[in-house]
Amino acid sequence: MEKKDTRSTIIKIGTDLISRQGFNATGIDAILKEAGIPKGSFYHYFRSKEEFGLAVIDRFAERFEQRLTTFLNDGGETPLNRIRHFLEDSLARVTQNQCTRGCLIGNLGQEMADLNERFRERLESIFQIWRERFAACLHEAQQRGELPGSIDPNVAAGFILSGWEGAILRSKVMKSPGPMRDFIEVLFATTLQ
Amino acid sequence: MEKKDTRSTIIKIGTDLISRQGFNATGIDAILKEAGIPKGSFYHYFRSKEEFGLAVIDRFAERFEQRLTTFLNDGGETPLNRIRHFLEDSLARVTQNQCTRGCLIGNLGQEMADLNERFRERLESIFQIWRERFAACLHEAQQRGELPGSIDPNVAAGFILSGWEGAILRSKVMKSPGPMRDFIEVLFATTLQ
Repeated sequence: MEKKDTRSTIIKIGTDLISRQGFNATGIDAILKEAGIPKGSFYHYFRSKEEFGLAVIDRFAERFEQRLTTFLNDGGETPLNRIRHFLEDSLARVTQNQCTRGCLIGNLGQEMADLNERFRERLESIFQIWRERFAACLHEAQQRGELPGSIDPNVAAGFILSGWEGAILRSKVMKSPGPMRDFIEVLFATTLQ
Repeated sequence: MEKKDTRSTIIKIGTDLISRQGFNATGIDAILKEAGIPKGSFYHYFRSKEEFGLAVIDRFAERFEQRLTTFLNDGGETPLNRIRHFLEDSLARVTQNQCTRGCLIGNLGQEMADLNERFRERLESIFQIWRERFAACLHEAQQRGELPGSIDPNVAAGFILSGWEGAILRSKVMKSPGPMRDFIEVLFATTLQ
């Protein structure tokens, strides 16, 4: 394998393990073992476990960004329907994973925000980007008359993001997609009405 | 110290450490050291680290239940104002802690739901109790005409709980009470309008 491919494999396997058990509980040796890469070669690819963790976050954020673009820039749908379809797609993914894992960014925020400032800053900026994406969609909904102008798109976008992260957490704890489904239902019946 | 007092001290210090760094990263030795209790005496008080963790959860839930009763059973306030005052009191507490720690039940749900079934069940039942307390309050709000009858109190209570857990998480990541404040504002301006 090329160096770049090996690095990418380590990140991929690391993402999976960190999603399941958290960052601190994920040992470098376990990742290398699952990747079939010789023990001790980790520092050939990453300067530290912290750098590796940040690379995992960046890869996740990039892929998530692509998903957001697919849904929220879908010109064939009204802005509110784009948000709804995105949330429903996430619900389907979580259901397929038997409500395990949760959201990697939410998980790491919970685990790492008080422990590592570099992680916290990176996670904050990702939440910020997500919020801006939702806010832009809500703003467009107002311009088209799909949503009343009385609501501040930035504040409402933060509200959606908070509710969605909490719903994913509750679905993980209950091992049921119910909280995520309820969130979508109430959101569109009240806040985005 | 009496045996009961010592056990209670270990739980109190454990709660603080687990709130700050999670369950798996909190070593028994560190708790005993901070409590000034001889190393090795832990198993005199708890059968296992798991039993200790469950005792920490139970103590937190008991105290939280008292807070919920103080606010949600306050007959001098309308049902919706009781919920608002409870959320504002939580916001003030999180602000006082510089937005560290987050919610112990949410944190442990994130960390432990996929790793330990006994923890998961305990956390699920606590979320369930909280949801029922909010639902009872919303039901009373409907009976008094403070809230339209069109919304299902159980579904709306789950929505509030999800949103609140997510807002606490986002406040922890942003080190700002903003997400919690925004959540209260949007909740009462839209969902509970």
